[in-house]
Amino acid sequence: MDLKLPSLEDIKDAHRRISPFIHRTPVLKSSLINKYMGAEIFFKCENFQSVGAFKFRGATNAVMQLSPEESSRGVGTHSSGNHAAALAKAAAVRDIPAYIVMPETSPEVKKKAVAGYGAKIYLCRPTLDARESKMEEVMIETGCTFVHPYNRFDIIAGQGTAALELLEDIHGLDLVMAPVGGGGLISGTSICAKGINPDIKVWAGEPEGADDAYRSLQAGKIIPSVNPQTMADGLLTSLGELTFKAVRENVDEIRLCSEENIVKAMRLVWERMKIIIEPSSAVPLGALIQNPGGWEGKRIGIIISGGNVELSDLPFKPSDI
Amino acid sequence: MDLKLPSLEDIKDAHRRISPFIHRTPVLKSSLINKYMGAEIFFKCENFQSVGAFKFRGATNAVMQLSPEESSRGVGTHSSGNHAAALAKAAAVRDIPAYIVMPETSPEVKKKAVAGYGAKIYLCRPTLDARESKMEEVMIETGCTFVHPYNRFDIIAGQGTAALELLEDIHGLDLVMAPVGGGGLISGTSICAKGINPDIKVWAGEPEGADDAYRSLQAGKIIPSVNPQTMADGLLTSLGELTFKAVRENVDEIRLCSEENIVKAMRLVWERMKIIIEPSSAVPLGALIQNPGGWEGKRIGIIISGGNVELSDLPFKPSDI
Repeated sequence: MDLKLPSLEDIKDAHRRISPFIHRTPVLKSSLINKYMGAEIFFKCENFQSVGAFKFRGATNAVMQLSPEESSRGVGTHSSGNHAAALAKAAAVRDIPAYIVMPETSPEVKKKAVAGYGAKIYLCRPTLDARESKMEEVMIETGCTFVHPYNRFDIIAGQGTAALELLEDIHGLDLVMAPVGGGGLISGTSICAKGINPDIKVWAGEPEGADDAYRSLQAGKIIPSVNPQTMADGLLTSLGELTFKAVRENVDEIRLCSEENIVKAMRLVWERMKIIIEPSSAVPLGALIQNPGGWEGKRIGIIISGGNVELSDLPFKPSDI
Repeated sequence: MDLKLPSLEDIKDAHRRISPFIHRTPVLKSSLINKYMGAEIFFKCENFQSVGAFKFRGATNAVMQLSPEESSRGVGTHSSGNHAAALAKAAAVRDIPAYIVMPETSPEVKKKAVAGYGAKIYLCRPTLDARESKMEEVMIETGCTFVHPYNRFDIIAGQGTAALELLEDIHGLDLVMAPVGGGGLISGTSICAKGINPDIKVWAGEPEGADDAYRSLQAGKIIPSVNPQTMADGLLTSLGELTFKAVRENVDEIRLCSEENIVKAMRLVWERMKIIIEPSSAVPLGALIQNPGGWEGKRIGIIISGGNVELSDLPFKPSDI
């Protein structure tokens, strides 16, 4: 596999390419949260992005770079999460076919969302093996281009555009944070931030129950998650070779976050900022709450990765605050 | 009672006065909601305002205009809602006393919020009579200035500043909407919008179960609500003399909204825009959903009045969308 990472210039190119199709999301802050945390925190709200997550940036960057010939054969992926919806919508925008392999156990809502963008859905048993072999079949049948959710040059470059906008809008940040799962977002974020200002710190937030990136950095090699357990369901995946390389080169620290602090951070943001964020997005703030040291009094940018959450299944009872 | 209404100039003065203390809230839109509604809708997000509601604008405008002598004696009101928190916080900003009469049945959270701003709380039985006579006592005891939640020149001028910002940020609006309860917000909104552009339409959204403003306009005199029933708990109050006058002079139409359409609109905004709005704030959009006619294809500004909602007590099960 080619381990070439995108540069800041590649991220800027991606931004020019996808700008007509994405939302330039706002940066919000809360005086109450700043007071509580003792730092000035700027939240880049990708929960307001198309399909409710940053994933639309990378998917759009990938789809818009296909050759006419490739595009006529369409794109495919296997996913039950935000990447599936993002790729389906990006394909719809370019008016090309999308083929999405989903576990038959996926919630009906998610299937509907993907189908709503006109993608063709293939159901399979809910195992990685079943997903991969079904995907293989579909690729042979259709000739579509497989778009991995994070371990790709164009996906990483696209995800980096959120940090590019954040750093354009807010000057003088000391620290930028994003959650780490497969690593597409933190890779793009860290390349962008260090490219603009080599002195800026970049930290990833990771759930204690899915700490493969933390352990991989310590070990100096990829240590995949085994049976990860966290409510941050966007962060269950493990680093790929490309994202591991990006993290190793550009991320200063990975800070861990307990489930309790994910809830605390999510609750703070919902209650004080009146915005809906998914548990994965609460991990960086939760990691700050959990680990005092090094960030107090600083200007901190946090990428809020998404807002797709089952509202009926909240991990807290907000009424008793 | 002096029935002098603020002018556009008074609203601009109020804006200069309160700007150092309030948030300039963002204006958001959703391509999905626009597609669903067949109009271009701009949401002025007062759910992001201090204390989570537009009420902080009017309260700040009232508090900042007190003479030094008045301010030393403090301010008071009776309320269990957003106005109590807003007045308490505005008083705290000016560092003057606030006396809040609250029904003993008020949720513990609301008492805590008001107390958190340093206000002195007086509990009373949960009847209007008990609230008013307790307030009377407190005013005699303290000499504080009573700040009515809506039927005041300075409150109306302050609430109008949300529309002022909206119309500064978004040009070419055909229609502006806000919910109507006591009428402070719609009064300020309508005076501001008509002052800037006499051709702009101003509509109020009102729950069917609390339709006193609708009936009052039809009758040409104030017809107070009797036992109003709606989940939009910010809209249970009836127009006052001053707000009735403002509505009669400046509001083109009052459009009613069923409980079902409040839920539908609230759900749309939560799910599609990822922001937390209270039921009262969903009433204008709900009224559009309920009453096709006159707004399709237009550019519409809607003031989202607040985001203070008991998250554990949602009127819908979002998972089955």
